[in-house]
Amino acid sequence: MKSSTSVVVLAGGYGGARMAHGFALLGDEVELTVIGNTGDDLELHGLYISPDLDTVMYTLAGMANAETGWGVRDETWSAAAMLESYGEPTWFRLGDRDLATHIVRSAQLAAGDRLTDVTRDLCRALDVDTALLPMTDDPVRTKVRTKDGWLDFQDYFVRRHHQDDVEEVRFDGIETARPSQEVLAAVESANLIVVAPSNPYVSVAPILSLGGILDAVLSASAPTIAISPIVGGAALRGPAAQMMSSLGTEPSALGIAAHYAGRWPNMVGTLVIDEADAAQADAITALGMEPATAGIVIATDEQQRRLARELLRIAGLGPT
Amino acid sequence: MKSSTSVVVLAGGYGGARMAHGFALLGDEVELTVIGNTGDDLELHGLYISPDLDTVMYTLAGMANAETGWGVRDETWSAAAMLESYGEPTWFRLGDRDLATHIVRSAQLAAGDRLTDVTRDLCRALDVDTALLPMTDDPVRTKVRTKDGWLDFQDYFVRRHHQDDVEEVRFDGIETARPSQEVLAAVESANLIVVAPSNPYVSVAPILSLGGILDAVLSASAPTIAISPIVGGAALRGPAAQMMSSLGTEPSALGIAAHYAGRWPNMVGTLVIDEADAAQADAITALGMEPATAGIVIATDEQQRRLARELLRIAGLGPT
Repeated sequence: MKSSTSVVVLAGGYGGARMAHGFALLGDEVELTVIGNTGDDLELHGLYISPDLDTVMYTLAGMANAETGWGVRDETWSAAAMLESYGEPTWFRLGDRDLATHIVRSAQLAAGDRLTDVTRDLCRALDVDTALLPMTDDPVRTKVRTKDGWLDFQDYFVRRHHQDDVEEVRFDGIETARPSQEVLAAVESANLIVVAPSNPYVSVAPILSLGGILDAVLSASAPTIAISPIVGGAALRGPAAQMMSSLGTEPSALGIAAHYAGRWPNMVGTLVIDEADAAQADAITALGMEPATAGIVIATDEQQRRLARELLRIAGLGPT
Repeated sequence: MKSSTSVVVLAGGYGGARMAHGFALLGDEVELTVIGNTGDDLELHGLYISPDLDTVMYTLAGMANAETGWGVRDETWSAAAMLESYGEPTWFRLGDRDLATHIVRSAQLAAGDRLTDVTRDLCRALDVDTALLPMTDDPVRTKVRTKDGWLDFQDYFVRRHHQDDVEEVRFDGIETARPSQEVLAAVESANLIVVAPSNPYVSVAPILSLGGILDAVLSASAPTIAISPIVGGAALRGPAAQMMSSLGTEPSALGIAAHYAGRWPNMVGTLVIDEADAAQADAITALGMEPATAGIVIATDEQQRRLARELLRIAGLGPT
């Protein structure tokens, strides 16, 4: 009998935060580590911003803005209005409370701290128990190629409202960036590795493209379960479905299976798809991946908790 | 007949801002340059803050918070509350709108811009026509000695509510700091130099202690008029009276005259004192300084405008 189960979640923003929250709601039963994508990070107004890490942190802190899906609840926008007066770019909206996070992070980074340590301190201050680990302390920047050329990720995603067809994705800095020791240690000692229902191309791929992480996942003793970010042919949120189409994969749960199987062979043991997509299970099995069906629309705490519990059961780790 | 009169105001925060505002209210008649104290500047949360420059800028922009005497009107405090959650020091209160100023300034300074240029850009964005010049682009930090030893200025002034007796004042960095070319050029070409009703020890002294400025003032063709920051034995605002006492000068308009005559001989041609202190005029004359009486409590726009007009008249520059 073990006292707690080590779960590692590979996470982007929205879907990753909700999946992580489900495990966090299980309390001491799970020792949760979230490995967060930092390819979306940007510098704006001289501040260092980690959108995906912050979405996870705010969600786990119970502070997330459920309406927007990003930022903090009960937010005000005074600084943003003043920044606009100063002619600063305003397409990336920063609320006043959120701004404090970026100010503190930037000051600590400027003082020479690792993003890993800064993130830990921010989480502790907000009473977040989960180990939230940036995938790396080195700079990695996601770029997407569109008909207008290569764009910074947030330029594509926020400023241009992810309306462009993405023709190619790359991660600048990925060749020299290294995962932290904490990231590799968490993967090695995990009882379960979960690939969150995040965008495979721009949320999951940066993490798995970092030298060392994929090998660690493949050689880990823990099973790897991925949750499809696609339900009924549409993305739970964001441009995943459109991106699959423009990059040549059918936007469906099966398409997700094909993408994972083709890009990272043998990595995903079980793919969890929505009950609505149960008809695709056999085709997924044919790709050498175990399909499992569950309710994967996880907007509420209860849905998140239930899916987390179901993943433990699938992995044979739940209470019998 | 000249089209406009060049007025240079040496300014701290509160009194300097109100004096400058009086001249600004005269419109095109005056070409106003404010030389602002930067000895009060500090870095907090990794941001560069110039309290005196900002008080002048916000006042000239019509945005100043009249209730507090610092910061911006219609302010919100969301970021401050969040900074407190992160364990950041909270004794120096930064409102959300104000924070935007420090963010933009810090980013521009980090990009290598001079504080002079950054301040110009901030002022332009807020439609402030006045040339607001930091006394120097080099770091100067005011320290005060109290019974508890040497304190950073804002530690003494804000955190400890300027309750300590000040035994000594020094300006770290003053030996190597240099006034900008803009500052020296403004003094040289001025028609009138005004020493604002600011604290002589910690607002006016840092400016005049900068190598080159005192010489420029003494050799300028323009008359120099100082306004007493003391009315009826009390400071218009802040610790000037208490500081005079603890540093050995009588806290009175006459004490101000004695301090200026002793510390910077021949610099002040005319000392403007309040009508309430008219009885001290003869003693001021005996110190070799011309006394003039006026209403120097300048809380309202009308009072500020009237005093500015009166200073032009005293200098023989007003309309006849």
